[in-house]
Amino acid sequence: MPRTITVGAAQLGPIARNDSRKQVVGRLLELMREAHGFRCDLIAYPELALTTFFPRWPIEDERELDSFYETEMPGPETKPLFEEAARRGIGFSLGFAELVVEKGRKRRFNSSILVDKTGRIVGKYRKVHLPGHSDVMDRPGQHLEKRFFEVGDLGFPVWRAFGGILGMCICNDRRWPETYRVMGLQGVEMVLLGYNSPIGLGDPFDLDALEPFHNHLVMQSGAYQNATWVVGVAKAGFEEGFNMIGQTCIIAPSGEIVAQCATMGDELVVRKCDLDMGAPYRADIFNFAYHRRIEHYKLITERTGAIPPPETT
Amino acid sequence: MPRTITVGAAQLGPIARNDSRKQVVGRLLELMREAHGFRCDLIAYPELALTTFFPRWPIEDERELDSFYETEMPGPETKPLFEEAARRGIGFSLGFAELVVEKGRKRRFNSSILVDKTGRIVGKYRKVHLPGHSDVMDRPGQHLEKRFFEVGDLGFPVWRAFGGILGMCICNDRRWPETYRVMGLQGVEMVLLGYNSPIGLGDPFDLDALEPFHNHLVMQSGAYQNATWVVGVAKAGFEEGFNMIGQTCIIAPSGEIVAQCATMGDELVVRKCDLDMGAPYRADIFNFAYHRRIEHYKLITERTGAIPPPETT
Repeated sequence: MPRTITVGAAQLGPIARNDSRKQVVGRLLELMREAHGFRCDLIAYPELALTTFFPRWPIEDERELDSFYETEMPGPETKPLFEEAARRGIGFSLGFAELVVEKGRKRRFNSSILVDKTGRIVGKYRKVHLPGHSDVMDRPGQHLEKRFFEVGDLGFPVWRAFGGILGMCICNDRRWPETYRVMGLQGVEMVLLGYNSPIGLGDPFDLDALEPFHNHLVMQSGAYQNATWVVGVAKAGFEEGFNMIGQTCIIAPSGEIVAQCATMGDELVVRKCDLDMGAPYRADIFNFAYHRRIEHYKLITERTGAIPPPETT
Repeated sequence: MPRTITVGAAQLGPIARNDSRKQVVGRLLELMREAHGFRCDLIAYPELALTTFFPRWPIEDERELDSFYETEMPGPETKPLFEEAARRGIGFSLGFAELVVEKGRKRRFNSSILVDKTGRIVGKYRKVHLPGHSDVMDRPGQHLEKRFFEVGDLGFPVWRAFGGILGMCICNDRRWPETYRVMGLQGVEMVLLGYNSPIGLGDPFDLDALEPFHNHLVMQSGAYQNATWVVGVAKAGFEEGFNMIGQTCIIAPSGEIVAQCATMGDELVVRKCDLDMGAPYRADIFNFAYHRRIEHYKLITERTGAIPPPETT
């Protein structure tokens, strides 16, 4: 019996700072209905899909900051999404800013959830690789994820869902081969990931022009090297004065891009994904048990930063 | 002061089963002289550059098998290469089959050496990720590296040489992100790697057509994700009835291919490589010390093969 997931990658165009949750959820619902029309089993939304990409501003006011986070999921404003999903029998993954209070302390994570076709949350992930900085810099655009989020504390779990083994990661996670490998070692067959990748922040090195190339490069190699589908979903376009890349795509276990958005706005691309397509790779060139040599990989988990060999004198 | 290495990637066309070492070394010398004319500091040769790709045959006769291995380096037949290198002041990396006798036991490795401008061996690597099989299969072309070589026992070392930090790996190693990462954690700035990548062996899955795409994909992502130069050098063309890919290339720390061969024969491509080109990446998006989260990577060194989560009942 073929094991397939028909997935919709639901790119979002810009979300304005003052857009309400209701407005945004309305857009998500519209994409969900379109995905349902295409018989999707699952629709994947971007990172921080409910608000503008707020870590670009050094927000000082705590009440304002909190307004970008969800304290419950579903909450009153996101409930329609869960209800519509259950009604139509379609699952979804959704990125959002998560605020939890533990022992009187606010904890903030850049999170995503996986929701099954009955509207039940079956998986949660909290972003591990937070990019950017914790300190405010003297420039118009920031990337203050290290300021506004804690490092995720759930590792890189996978879940049996939709007839396969699914994992999630978020944005900058996709640049790190460790992300895919940890999931690959749990047999992942489809990785859902959302991203907000701003360009033109005035970084000390001006490699912005390569960002679209790097975006696909890391997802394609992550897919191929772990024989998994990768669904990469952007929040795209010109948002509050900043450009963000698009290129939402669905990547096969061969590393090939087999569906891709072509706009910078709300756009759905759909692909029927054969979960067994990765099997020949797993049985041969990427048969981990047969080929991996963990005795030679120790530095990867022993050493965080690079340490060059001593200078010879 | 700019730190640069002008490197020549010296692709080789086919080597016949009966070609002598002298014939092959003659071709290597010719490429070395050409590289010297381009003011190269260093010329990189392919994997198993002194013979045909012999692991395609289930060779039973031990004397015949031994004839494909080097028992000393330099030996009488390879000495001219070392002498020419010293005379012209050019370094080289060279892949070869290595046979050493330890405690009366023959040990065989798929090795490469790094030789400095004085003709002195400054680094040795033994291939870790041996592809293919140890058992002979019922088909014309084999990939019997697991039969004819032991797994390398030297890890993935790097060396201070040519004014930078250099590493080596071989062929199938390049498909594994762990390879580059272990060197990246030692601050590698240039990875030299040779390969013989046959296609059309009649593998159970017919993804040969994607081999050239995969070849570049894994080297480009390895370069970008570790902000290192990668020099990938093929033995190419139609050798003893089997096709091997070419695509010899030099890849910048951006992941961009900045030089590439266009034939399937002996061909040199040259590039002046700025070793500091990776620095902006290391200081920012790939600042390992700042961003890596080794507490979440443990499976990579704890688990060899993939273990899917238990089936839910």
